[in-house]
Amino acid sequence: MKERVASLLEKVRNENPLIHNITNVVVTNFTANGLLALGASPVMAYAHEEVADMARIAGALVLNMGTLNAVEVEAMLLAGKAANERGVPVIFDPVGAGATPYRTEIARAIAGTVKLSAIRGNAAEIANVIGEAWAIKGVDSTGEGSVVELAQKAAKRLQTVVVVTGKEDVVADEQGVFIIANGHPLLTKVTGTGCLLTSVIGAFAAVETDVAFAAAAALACYGVAAELAYEQAGDNPGSFQIALLDALAIVSRVHVEERALIEGMNSHV
Amino acid sequence: MKERVASLLEKVRNENPLIHNITNVVVTNFTANGLLALGASPVMAYAHEEVADMARIAGALVLNMGTLNAVEVEAMLLAGKAANERGVPVIFDPVGAGATPYRTEIARAIAGTVKLSAIRGNAAEIANVIGEAWAIKGVDSTGEGSVVELAQKAAKRLQTVVVVTGKEDVVADEQGVFIIANGHPLLTKVTGTGCLLTSVIGAFAAVETDVAFAAAAALACYGVAAELAYEQAGDNPGSFQIALLDALAIVSRVHVEERALIEGMNSHV
Amino acid sequence: MKERVASLLEKVRNENPLIHNITNVVVTNFTANGLLALGASPVMAYAHEEVADMARIAGALVLNMGTLNAVEVEAMLLAGKAANERGVPVIFDPVGAGATPYRTEIARAIAGTVKLSAIRGNAAEIANVIGEAWAIKGVDSTGEGSVVELAQKAAKRLQTVVVVTGKEDVVADEQGVFIIANGHPLLTKVTGTGCLLTSVIGAFAAVETDVAFAAAAALACYGVAAELAYEQAGDNPGSFQIALLDALAIVSRVHVEERALIEGMNSHV
Repeated sequence: MKERVASLLEKVRNENPLIHNITNVVVTNFTANGLLALGASPVMAYAHEEVADMARIAGALVLNMGTLNAVEVEAMLLAGKAANERGVPVIFDPVGAGATPYRTEIARAIAGTVKLSAIRGNAAEIANVIGEAWAIKGVDSTGEGSVVELAQKAAKRLQTVVVVTGKEDVVADEQGVFIIANGHPLLTKVTGTGCLLTSVIGAFAAVETDVAFAAAAALACYGVAAELAYEQAGDNPGSFQIALLDALAIVSRVHVEERALIEGMNSHV
Repeated sequence: MKERVASLLEKVRNENPLIHNITNVVVTNFTANGLLALGASPVMAYAHEEVADMARIAGALVLNMGTLNAVEVEAMLLAGKAANERGVPVIFDPVGAGATPYRTEIARAIAGTVKLSAIRGNAAEIANVIGEAWAIKGVDSTGEGSVVELAQKAAKRLQTVVVVTGKEDVVADEQGVFIIANGHPLLTKVTGTGCLLTSVIGAFAAVETDVAFAAAAALACYGVAAELAYEQAGDNPGSFQIALLDALAIVSRVHVEERALIEGMNSHV
Repeated sequence: MKERVASLLEKVRNENPLIHNITNVVVTNFTANGLLALGASPVMAYAHEEVADMARIAGALVLNMGTLNAVEVEAMLLAGKAANERGVPVIFDPVGAGATPYRTEIARAIAGTVKLSAIRGNAAEIANVIGEAWAIKGVDSTGEGSVVELAQKAAKRLQTVVVVTGKEDVVADEQGVFIIANGHPLLTKVTGTGCLLTSVIGAFAAVETDVAFAAAAALACYGVAAELAYEQAGDNPGSFQIALLDALAIVSRVHVEERALIEGMNSHV
C-alpha cells in the first residue's frame, strides 16, 4: 500500500491540479503556500459572480467554514452545486461545528445540500455534524476504537468519505476503514494545519477517483512531512510552520515508503 | 513584581484561555499563531449570527479595527455587548485612529458603547480616541513624561485601563501607572506585532482580574520574547517574525525574572 | 543605469512612502511585511467610508483583484478616483484576468475607469485585459519577443506603463521598453510574490515620477533580493518566503550595482 501512496503523491506533482479553496481568512496564505509546496495549484475565489466558473475548471473544490458568514456560505453553495454538476470532487472542513449553534447549523446545511466527496474534522466536529453527543473538551482523551465507530457512523449517515483526525487519523466509507498513524503533536501548535490538510486531501482527490484511498494517502504524506519538519524545527512553532512548507516540497517516494504508517481494514486492505 | 509576572505567564499556559478575536485581515494568521505559541487558544469569528455566542464562552474578547468595515463594526458591537453581559473582559485596539475621520469616529463609537477592560494603541491612536491633539508624525520623538500624562488622561476619560506602547510602554488606570521597558525596535518592522500584543493582553486578562497588572505582565513577557527573538534572528524582519513565535513558546519564568523591566508607580507599586 | 536604480532604492528607504493597498486576503500579511522590510510604510484599508481619505494621503495606491467581490471593487473605484484627483499614482494588478469571465470584466472595468500609472501581470493576464488571444497554459513557453510586443500593444491600448513579468520581465510605455533579467524560479513556488512585487512598484512610483523607470528599478531590486534569498534558503519554499523578506531589508546599493540585469531600449536607454 505504501507504494501506491507514494505513486499518488507523484501523480499530484505531475498533474499539478487546480484546487479551488473557499476558506477562512486565518489560513489563506498558509493553505496556498502549502498546496504550492506540495505541487498543486491553489486558487482562492469567493465572489458569487465567479465561484461556479472557478469550481468547474478546478480539480477539486475545498469548502472551509472557519470564518464563515452568510455571504460566504452562499458562495460555498453556489460553488458546490457547480462542482457537483461537473463531477469535481468537493471536500468539506466543518471548522468549529458545535462551538456555536450557527456553525452547527451551517455545517449540517452544507453537508445536506452539497454532495460531498469527503468531510474532514476532529472527532467533536464530525460528531456535531451528525448530531452525536461528543464532549469537545474530551476529544483528546477518547479511545481510538470509538473514533472508528464515529467515522463509520458518519460515513453511513452522510453517505461520504469521513476523515477524523486526531492522535491517529481515521478514514471511513461504507467499504471500510484506513488508520494512519503519522504526524506530530506540534501540528496542534500551528494554526491552519488541519485546514491545509483538508486542501491537501483535495489535491489527492483531484487525481484519484477512490476518494477514501486518496484521503488516506494525503494523510500519510502530510503526516510524514510533519515528521520531517519536526526533525528540522524541533519544539518551535514558528519554525515548524515554515519547515512544514519546506517538507511538503521535499517529501518523496523514499520518505513515504520508509515512514508511512497506514493500514486498511475490510475491503480497503 | 517579576515573580508575580512570571506566575501569571504560567497561569496563562495552564489555563489555556479561549481568546475570541475580531481582528483585521492582515494579522489573523500571525495573531492565531502567536496566541497558540504562548499557550492560549485563539478563535476568530465574525458572523453576526454567532459572535455573541462565541464571546460568551471566551476568556477574553479582542476587538481590532485594522481593516474595519460597517459589517465588522456591527459584529464588534454585538460581541462586545455579549461579553459585557457575561463579564468577559474586552480589549480594544483602535488601529489607525486619526488616520482617517472614519477610523476616529468608529474608535470613539466602540469606546463609548462597549465597556472596555483595556485599550491599547500608540500615543497618536490613544490621543485621537480622546480628542487630544497629537502629531502622528511626532510620536516617536515625544518625551516619555507626556506619554504617561496622556495615558492617565485617557484612563480617566475612558474609565478603563489604557496601554500606550512605544519605546517604553505605559499602562495606566485611575490607581496608578506601570512602565515597561522591554521589547526591541525590530518589532516595528513586522506587521501585526502590536495587534498580536493586544491579543496577548487579552490572554493575560482572561486569567487575572487586575487588568492593569495583567496588561503590564503581558507587555513584559512579550517584550522579553522579542528580545529573545532578536538574539536568534538579528536585523532580519522575516526571520524575526518567525523567531518571535518561537520565543513566545519558550519564554519562561527564568527569562522573565532575569530580564523583565517593569516598575509600578503609586498604588501599583 | 544601475546607479540610478540603486539611488532610487535608497530614496524609497529615505522617504518611507505610505502605500495604500486594496489587495486580496491571501497576501495581506506578506505584502505588508514585504513593504515594511523594504523600507516603505504599508496600510490596508477597504471601507467605502475611508478609502478615498486614505488614498489621498498615500504615496501610491495599489489595487489587486486577487479575491475580488462587488463591495471591494466599488472600494477600488472610490479609492482610484480620489487618487487620480490628487495625482497619487495608481498601480493595478489584474490577478487571474481571463480565469473567469467576471475577472476579465472587472479588470477591464478598472482599467477603463481609473487612470492607472502602471499595470502589472503575467502575459496571460495582460493579454486578457486588452482582449488579445493568449493561451494561459502556454505563457511559460512563449518566446520573449512576443512578450515585448504584447507589453507595447497593451501600453498603447491602455495608455499606461505595462509590466509583464515572467522568466524575463518587460516594462513598456509609449516611449520604449526595459527588460529586466533578475529574479529566481522559486518565486513561483511562494504565493503572493507577484502581488508583493506590484506593491513594491507602488513604493518606487511613490518617489519617482518616471513610472516606467520606477517600475524597472523595482523589478531589478526585487529580483536581486530574490536571488539573495535563494542563496540563503535554496529550494525550500517556506524558508524562501522568509528569506525574501530578510533580503528586501538588506538589499543595498552594492548588491544592485553588482547584480542588476536591466537594459532600456529606445528612449529609455
